[in-house]
Amino acid sequence: MRFTVTYLGTASAKPVRERNQSAQVLCVRERFFLMDCGEGTQREMARCHIPMQRIDSVFISHVHGDHVFGLPGLLSTMGMEGRTEPLQVFGPANLGPILNFFLSYYGEGLAFEIRFTPLKMKEPEVILSSKNVEVLAFPLRHGIDTYGYIFREKEPLWNVRKDAVERLGLSLTEIGTLKQGGDVFRPDGTVLSHAELAYKPFVPRSYAYCSDTAVFPEERQFLRGVRFLYHEATFLQEHADNAYKRFHSTTLEVARLAAELGVEHLYIGHFSSRNRDGALYEAECRTLFPATTAVNDGDVVEFPFEKAE
Amino acid sequence: MRFTVTYLGTASAKPVRERNQSAQVLCVRERFFLMDCGEGTQREMARCHIPMQRIDSVFISHVHGDHVFGLPGLLSTMGMEGRTEPLQVFGPANLGPILNFFLSYYGEGLAFEIRFTPLKMKEPEVILSSKNVEVLAFPLRHGIDTYGYIFREKEPLWNVRKDAVERLGLSLTEIGTLKQGGDVFRPDGTVLSHAELAYKPFVPRSYAYCSDTAVFPEERQFLRGVRFLYHEATFLQEHADNAYKRFHSTTLEVARLAAELGVEHLYIGHFSSRNRDGALYEAECRTLFPATTAVNDGDVVEFPFEKAE
Repeated sequence: MRFTVTYLGTASAKPVRERNQSAQVLCVRERFFLMDCGEGTQREMARCHIPMQRIDSVFISHVHGDHVFGLPGLLSTMGMEGRTEPLQVFGPANLGPILNFFLSYYGEGLAFEIRFTPLKMKEPEVILSSKNVEVLAFPLRHGIDTYGYIFREKEPLWNVRKDAVERLGLSLTEIGTLKQGGDVFRPDGTVLSHAELAYKPFVPRSYAYCSDTAVFPEERQFLRGVRFLYHEATFLQEHADNAYKRFHSTTLEVARLAAELGVEHLYIGHFSSRNRDGALYEAECRTLFPATTAVNDGDVVEFPFEKAE
Repeated sequence: MRFTVTYLGTASAKPVRERNQSAQVLCVRERFFLMDCGEGTQREMARCHIPMQRIDSVFISHVHGDHVFGLPGLLSTMGMEGRTEPLQVFGPANLGPILNFFLSYYGEGLAFEIRFTPLKMKEPEVILSSKNVEVLAFPLRHGIDTYGYIFREKEPLWNVRKDAVERLGLSLTEIGTLKQGGDVFRPDGTVLSHAELAYKPFVPRSYAYCSDTAVFPEERQFLRGVRFLYHEATFLQEHADNAYKRFHSTTLEVARLAAELGVEHLYIGHFSSRNRDGALYEAECRTLFPATTAVNDGDVVEFPFEKAE
């Protein structure tokens, strides 16, 4: 029941010695989702022991080079290593020509299909859904078609307390009703309340990826209910002018957003090459939102599986 | 009077943890030449303290991804960092559409010109010539349009021995004749032999870059006179079948070529991800050609400036 993110690249536009360009991988219950794919991502995967071939879906925020220049290499290596499983790619429509150009030049030997879904939505929409997890995309504000993503475990069915099954001699039908969240009305007039007899087996985990973007009013609404938030914080507060001009966020803007949302933890990255020390960014955020972590390349964060009670 | 090569990437098609994909930089008397540009090259440059903006020419061997996927990122970063100096790019004609696609998507903000020269020759031709150095390109054999490059210092003029100038009271005209390699015939019948009075101030250095390619008969002729040879040696001898099928070279083939050419030193790289330890390749080559070095990422080789006597 893993829900783990691995930060492969935490630099902004320009890679620096200690930080590669944007990429991170979320593993949700053994599915591997790649968010963005800056140059060098395939090598960072090898360094971080991410099983490249098990990535089934790629989520691209926007086509600025620092978020996509690693795609051709990744796709080529997947092909060379014998991949046959299709790969889903989600992203803005202008990613299409980039994939097509790649395929026209390097597609001949590929034995797997690239299934590209161009995004176009104004508010969060489910773009992928499986038994346990769903992914939503929503627009960000970056001066170019850009999307954020929310990954969340699906709400589990209720579990019925084991002691109650025996004590009350529950039938399969009665258990079924309680699992769906209903009360049981017995012929003898007894009411078996699901609130008393059932419980949620775990608290669904959710993680949002917001990069690149300025903080914008609708973001609060789009991210409502998210437990763990990754948000770019390209600039320290003193460079707010730059953030404004380039549709990026500052530390304090992001911290304020996290506080308003009431997320459990905020992760920040995409740091300007001018100030490479994450601790500076973290310290500024913590003045408004103490549960902030500035991430570094290679960091792995495990979001624990929590029983509901 | 530097003549120094820095190995940025020594892996073959697939990057591995300890080796990036193909790229190396030759610095000849403060000019910086980039050979190939695998994914991640710009970051390796930062790691190896190569001044990116001082690269004036890029020499691409062929368009396989592991030799070009770093170009978009490099060109973007050069632009972001304010480059205005033109950049020359040499390579096969099918590199043109790759550069054009890049420019169509990412060229808007670039303030420097990319001057692409498509290559098409059957034997070595000078493609770049300046006061001190010239670069030749020649075809390799890799199953796709591929070129090798030779970088060489120009033959210096002769210097006239200082003691002779005074002793013989040489006139400026006489010195000029000796510098050009001629003998001086004085009216009194004396012959001043340039062989005795003049000398070459240094031995011109030359470096060849051959990757990717099978070893082929004409290569010996193309590389004649080269002092230092870099040659791919993708496979250990036991995998000669693979080398043959994929137009790559084995250790012993390359060592034999180096021996036949009589180069001063052989450098090998582009090692298969199956055997990543350069020492294995080096040991095989040394059985035929002892002056072999297997290179690793980050290696810097300084070719000394040698006075001719």
